Amino acid sequence: MKAWQELTITVHREAEEAVSNLLIEAGSQGVAINDTADYIGQEDRFGELYPAVEQSEMVTITAYYPSSADIDDIRQTINQGLNRLKQCDVELGELTLTNQELAEEDWADNWKAYYEPARITHDLTIVPSWTDYEATAGEKIIRLDPGMAFGTGTHPTTKLSLFALEQVLRGGETVIDVGTGSGVLSIASSLLGAKEVFAYDLDDVAVRVAKDNIALNQATDNIHVAAGDLLKGLTQEADVIVANILADILVHVTADAYRLIKSEGYLIMSGIISEKLDMVKQAALNAGFLLETHMLQGEWNALIFKKTDDLSGVIGG
Amino acid sequence: MKAWQELTITVHREAEEAVSNLLIEAGSQGVAINDTADYIGQEDRFGELYPAVEQSEMVTITAYYPSSADIDDIRQTINQGLNRLKQCDVELGELTLTNQELAEEDWADNWKAYYEPARITHDLTIVPSWTDYEATAGEKIIRLDPGMAFGTGTHPTTKLSLFALEQVLRGGETVIDVGTGSGVLSIASSLLGAKEVFAYDLDDVAVRVAKDNIALNQATDNIHVAAGDLLKGLTQEADVIVANILADILVHVTADAYRLIKSEGYLIMSGIISEKLDMVKQAALNAGFLLETHMLQGEWNALIFKKTDDLSGVIGG
Repeated sequence: MKAWQELTITVHREAEEAVSNLLIEAGSQGVAINDTADYIGQEDRFGELYPAVEQSEMVTITAYYPSSADIDDIRQTINQGLNRLKQCDVELGELTLTNQELAEEDWADNWKAYYEPARITHDLTIVPSWTDYEATAGEKIIRLDPGMAFGTGTHPTTKLSLFALEQVLRGGETVIDVGTGSGVLSIASSLLGAKEVFAYDLDDVAVRVAKDNIALNQATDNIHVAAGDLLKGLTQEADVIVANILADILVHVTADAYRLIKSEGYLIMSGIISEKLDMVKQAALNAGFLLETHMLQGEWNALIFKKTDDLSGVIGG
Repeated sequence: MKAWQELTITVHREAEEAVSNLLIEAGSQGVAINDTADYIGQEDRFGELYPAVEQSEMVTITAYYPSSADIDDIRQTINQGLNRLKQCDVELGELTLTNQELAEEDWADNWKAYYEPARITHDLTIVPSWTDYEATAGEKIIRLDPGMAFGTGTHPTTKLSLFALEQVLRGGETVIDVGTGSGVLSIASSLLGAKEVFAYDLDDVAVRVAKDNIALNQATDNIHVAAGDLLKGLTQEADVIVANILADILVHVTADAYRLIKSEGYLIMSGIISEKLDMVKQAALNAGFLLETHMLQGEWNALIFKKTDDLSGVIGG
């Protein structure tokens, strides 16, 4: 009976996605997230059922590694990544890192729920790479290695980014995807008719993961992935820039985004925890953007900004 | 040279859509809305350009009637409608009602901007009934008489409702459209794959307007329009209920909606001005719904609630 090693880390909610990516890049097949905020707003109906859920700023993220993996190496890799995040002023809170052995059956049970096609929007469905899935008319399929896709692929920050892309893309656009991660937003942009997609992530490991996922999908020759430090030094203009990254990083993107986005183009920013919303919004307004749409699920916010001089088209038009 | 009569009314922003509908039902080909809130959030960049836009709770709505129409009759009809709104506790603010003659050319210039196809989402485009418009692959066309459609059809409350329908509809659903107005949300639901759509509005005049618009569109035999007082007395269950009406009316819909919506179904509520948001949200939570997504454009909010016992599926799932 093959065993799995379970590694658990507790961090500030805001670092949830960045740390999830760290755990996955260190070799985990995915992560499970336990967040007390998932229960917020349920008090009215479930007050009697869930009286004990104490609200916390911290979330617990669990990752799984094969028993053959050297857990000390993995811990070292993760600690290095956490130190990088700290240097970016990401609030991590107090870290705890524990690991335990887990039997194959337990692991399979834990993950079964994630191994299913997830229809995220009317047109976009995320499907595990090995699954046979028959698309209905008009349905667009994003094939992803579930290591990256599930647990993070159906996260509110990704869902809201996909909603936003559907709202602004019409076909023929040039799109820049900042901090592409799994590549899911680049694949979606291509499926929604973008002519060219330029995807960037920080290092070669992240770029390889994105390329592997993109290669699972047909007709994605129009997606170009490269290592890059946000939008710094880019000269490629775009109709749409999408950035699903941490709020503290987003504020460093807005000025470059305004420089690169064509007139009447859009900046989509997601991954914004509510307490950082005003900071990100102000950065984009200062850069010259106008806010068109704000979406939120639980604690997570996404903003759609427009670069335009035509006020009438923005609100109420 | 044919002349037009211009009628202007100033009301509280919250009553904007209800009063627009009144003016249109009284025979106007459409309305023009002037709202100072359209300039909110633009101060950062345009502070020097628009220093004189004083923020106000009031909006000015302008409607146009043929010179042959009896403007006194029209004023009486509108005043009766305004009295009905007052009885529903709709805050109208101080009313002013003026009218002046307008030359044909002025009228045509004023309206030109509205006489164009408007691609609202990735898939949905609203097209004036007489226009030849060639749909691109996957694009779904909503044909509307611009009397109803333009000026109100591209209003944020309608846009957000259409975004929400795209997010929750997958095909095969039964949809109830409360306060259907122009019928635009019923037509959209049908285009997005709903099996049956039941549309209701308060009186026979509104029902006729909706039926006329629906008849402009192909394959809408699955839309059934009838007069009805919100959801009172209905027994027809639904997968999705959409209500794009005033916040003060929405709070009277939530309990009936919870009764009629099937497990795992959705309630979409739009037309909610920010100051009434908490009131509407609380009414839906009290009825038993869980909040999934909140969207806003300017002062206008839309909420997507789910009827479910599965907490994990609501946020972060």
